Amino acid sequence: MTRKNEQMTEALSPYCAVYSRAIEIIGRRWTGAILRALMAGRTRFNDIAKTVPGLSDRLLSERLKELEAEGIVARAVTPSTPVRVEYALTEAGEALVPVVCTVAGWAETWLPLPAPEKTA
Amino acid sequence: MTRKNEQMTEALSPYCAVYSRAIEIIGRRWTGAILRALMAGRTRFNDIAKTVPGLSDRLLSERLKELEAEGIVARAVTPSTPVRVEYALTEAGEALVPVVCTVAGWAETWLPLPAPEKTA
Repeated sequence: MTRKNEQMTEALSPYCAVYSRAIEIIGRRWTGAILRALMAGRTRFNDIAKTVPGLSDRLLSERLKELEAEGIVARAVTPSTPVRVEYALTEAGEALVPVVCTVAGWAETWLPLPAPEKTA
Repeated sequence: MTRKNEQMTEALSPYCAVYSRAIEIIGRRWTGAILRALMAGRTRFNDIAKTVPGLSDRLLSERLKELEAEGIVARAVTPSTPVRVEYALTEAGEALVPVVCTVAGWAETWLPLPAPEKTA
C-alpha cells in the first residue's frame, strides 16, 4: 500500500466505523417505528407498544434499553405511587428521526412494494 | 389482535419491508463509499477502485453487480477495442446519495469517533 493510500485509509476508517454503527442502530428491527412513536409524543411504555402493532413487550423493552445505552432515548423515573416511567428522545434522538424518515422516503419512492395480500 | 390493530399492521408491514431493504442496501460494507465515488464522477472500474482504498477488486465487482441488480447503478458497455465499460448512478442511485450522506452526517455528529492510533 502506498503512503498516500495509507493516509486515505486512515482518514476513511473512523468515518466508516461510525457510519456502520449508525446503520446498525437505525437498521434494527422496530427501531424506526419506536423512534416515530416517541417523536409523535408517546412517552409511556404501553403507549409506545400500542403504536407499534406486532412488537412484543420483551422486544420493546430490549430496544428501549439499547437506545438508552446509545444516548438516543432518555428514561425518566418519577417516584410516585405507582412509579411513573417515561421515555423521551435525547437531542441525538431528535436528530435521528429525520434520518430514519429520509431512508424511509427513499425506500417508499424507489423500492417496489411487495404485492398486497387480498383479504375476503 | 383487534380489527384496528390488524389494519395498522397491514399499513405498516409493506413500509417496514421496503425500509429494511433500504437499510440492507446502504448498510452493506463499501456501498456508501462506492456511491460517493460514482457521485464524484468516477465511471471506470479502476477509478472507483482507486477512490476507495482497502476495497478489493473482487468485492467492488460484487457490490457493483448488486447495485446494478437493485437498479441503483447502470453499466454501459461501449464495443470499442478494448471494450469500454462504464458505471453511472441511475435516478434511484442519485436519490440515494443524499440518504447515505444524511446517515453519515448524523453518525459524524452524534457517535463518538474511535480513538485514533498514534503512529511514529
